[in-house]
Amino acid sequence: MPTLVMKFGGTSVANLDRIARAAKRVALEVGKGYDVIVIVSAMSGKTNELVGWVNETSPLYDAREYDAIVSSGENVTAGLMALRLQEMGIPARSWQGWQVPVKTTSAHGAARIEEIPSDNINQKFGEGMKVAVVAGFQGISPEGRITTLGRGGSDTTAVAFAAAFEAERCDIYTDVDGVYTTDPRITSKARKLDKIAFEEMLELASLGAKVLQTRSVELAMRYNVKLRVLSSFEEPSDDAGTLVCAEEQIMESNVVSGVAYSREEAKMTLVTIDDKPGIAASIFGPLSEAGVNVDMIVQNISETNYQGHAGGVTDMTFSCPIDQKMRAEQALNEAKEKGLINFDRLEADTEVAKVSVVGIGMRSHAGVAAKMFEVLSNEGINIKVIATSEIKISVLIDRKYMELAVQALHDAFDLDKA
Amino acid sequence: MPTLVMKFGGTSVANLDRIARAAKRVALEVGKGYDVIVIVSAMSGKTNELVGWVNETSPLYDAREYDAIVSSGENVTAGLMALRLQEMGIPARSWQGWQVPVKTTSAHGAARIEEIPSDNINQKFGEGMKVAVVAGFQGISPEGRITTLGRGGSDTTAVAFAAAFEAERCDIYTDVDGVYTTDPRITSKARKLDKIAFEEMLELASLGAKVLQTRSVELAMRYNVKLRVLSSFEEPSDDAGTLVCAEEQIMESNVVSGVAYSREEAKMTLVTIDDKPGIAASIFGPLSEAGVNVDMIVQNISETNYQGHAGGVTDMTFSCPIDQKMRAEQALNEAKEKGLINFDRLEADTEVAKVSVVGIGMRSHAGVAAKMFEVLSNEGINIKVIATSEIKISVLIDRKYMELAVQALHDAFDLDKA
Repeated sequence: MPTLVMKFGGTSVANLDRIARAAKRVALEVGKGYDVIVIVSAMSGKTNELVGWVNETSPLYDAREYDAIVSSGENVTAGLMALRLQEMGIPARSWQGWQVPVKTTSAHGAARIEEIPSDNINQKFGEGMKVAVVAGFQGISPEGRITTLGRGGSDTTAVAFAAAFEAERCDIYTDVDGVYTTDPRITSKARKLDKIAFEEMLELASLGAKVLQTRSVELAMRYNVKLRVLSSFEEPSDDAGTLVCAEEQIMESNVVSGVAYSREEAKMTLVTIDDKPGIAASIFGPLSEAGVNVDMIVQNISETNYQGHAGGVTDMTFSCPIDQKMRAEQALNEAKEKGLINFDRLEADTEVAKVSVVGIGMRSHAGVAAKMFEVLSNEGINIKVIATSEIKISVLIDRKYMELAVQALHDAFDLDKA
Repeated sequence: MPTLVMKFGGTSVANLDRIARAAKRVALEVGKGYDVIVIVSAMSGKTNELVGWVNETSPLYDAREYDAIVSSGENVTAGLMALRLQEMGIPARSWQGWQVPVKTTSAHGAARIEEIPSDNINQKFGEGMKVAVVAGFQGISPEGRITTLGRGGSDTTAVAFAAAFEAERCDIYTDVDGVYTTDPRITSKARKLDKIAFEEMLELASLGAKVLQTRSVELAMRYNVKLRVLSSFEEPSDDAGTLVCAEEQIMESNVVSGVAYSREEAKMTLVTIDDKPGIAASIFGPLSEAGVNVDMIVQNISETNYQGHAGGVTDMTFSCPIDQKMRAEQALNEAKEKGLINFDRLEADTEVAKVSVVGIGMRSHAGVAAKMFEVLSNEGINIKVIATSEIKISVLIDRKYMELAVQALHDAFDLDKA
């Protein structure tokens, strides 16, 4: 029998009615002849309740106990889903992470899946079981203790099972009906994509389209697992949702597939620093140690014989999440006091936003950057920082122009047309 | 280090404050030099919530899924208790049943503990851990699935751990402060017992003094585990609660230790049945198959050549829980229709109560029964059925006299005096 993995997030199993509705979708796939592995999250709200208790009991908690406590939410859903399916006459049973076992590293709270033996579940499929319901987000460490994969880890569980069981597809049921060309709240012209390449999804996910956890997309890409994102609140249909797949499986790639944005950016500029080998390391080393996630980096052209500096001087600009601005300032000022770096002034701009265009077609189409800059220029929007990758161009602009920029770029790249 | 087992029931760990209070009691014992094994129940209300979900999802549920779901409540408490102890600077960690592992039979929902290997936890004690917090009520079957021991199973878990680890004592923390000579709601003269023998506790427990689960007392008796029942809501003290122990450890046994009662009784009489070998089996076989818990049984003296009966005839009276009366009637009438038994009439009396006096001293003191009957006679209370064991005399009386009977017997046997 072909195998299908179906994952239901917290809102899709929020109560017994929704579990019953999800079970009906599972039954549909069983009816098509699939052996189904269902991955479930905790009923929405349950994980937060457990996390709240942990934090109240022990603010600097032992992560091993945190995992043992928090994983219980998924176990409850798994059992309830198995019972619901049995009620519908479908042979089903639940598995907790340690029962499979989902072998992970010992990094409690953020463990990585190392191996998922398939023999145990496959034996049951051989004996006539039709659905294995597995508690997502959890595993077991080499020491025999319960681990969790971190928030959103159920997506990763689902993809890992799809890889281990060579599933035909991994369907991620969530509360949105797919991946859009941009945020529909910003332009009503936003269009649901039928297909998107792994690489594009990664860029969109890390830019704020929080449909799929980044790690799960990486894993899907590595093992070439076909991922489908779809809503559990829509009527079932064969072309529902968005398929996230390898580039080769998309007949005609879009030059640009989507416009992403992030409001939560801060721009930091170190004014007048010595321009010498190792200077970048001496700046970004302390930032990394302080846990600052630096995103875009721009270094100005060098100026020689600047006042009070022996060699050449330059400016360095970078962006980071806005809530890490204070931490970044502290780390840089401390490094200055210790004599590790030398700058005249540190300027912070917290009124910026990042807008990006993403598309694998960019690789073979020149002129995307030029067009983007022209569109923004026509709207009178000044670009503060530019960063590019193979399939993405990002700019930092004044936050007040963000919506305008997204709308203009969405129009200019014809993203409302299939 | 000597080992102590401490068990906290649902009301003793009902919320984070109570878990913190329980943890303080654990800390006291650690301070005395004990290695402590803490057995915890689910936070009160949690198990009922989970059971409710199971019943709503699948009325005739798969008991294996029931166990997987319902056991999660204890896991949460175990983790929170371990965290709380760590916060107090006490090295502690949690164990779920399968991690110890608590090996049980496969009788899901009512599994029996078969083995508790001590090496895993003892190794940690050797490495400096002071408290092992174990989720009560659960274990793992030979098939690797989660089992539960049935309601109240956490008491049994505690005693089984005390036996496996040769603990000095097993303290059961609950919401009552010990075992009383009778129900204090019936007479204010009821007195807390300092000590009680296992056998007496068993008679009191099965008679309705729901302080300790019967199975846990049986297990304690078999392995000679000293059990102490005490309240988690009282100030700690060395002579708190009631010690349940072997007869030999009680210096001077009371002739009578307590007066127990049960309101929930029904008296059933089969009038005019054939008195021949095997007749008792033919009556109580169908009752047992129908799940009726028959308690007291009395057979009248035989009468020969009674109208319409070839051989001798007799009457048979028995008592059972009042909510099983209909089931008993149905089973007996069906057996009559099938020709398995022959009786003229089935009479049911649901206005009865059972009152018992219990005491190991009875074995060596004659006259307890005579005194009991005299006391009841003096109060004008008619006795309907009498049943005796080595350490207990029970009578069935009209329910309206129950309180009076308990009070009169409590006075007559001087139970208010130490």
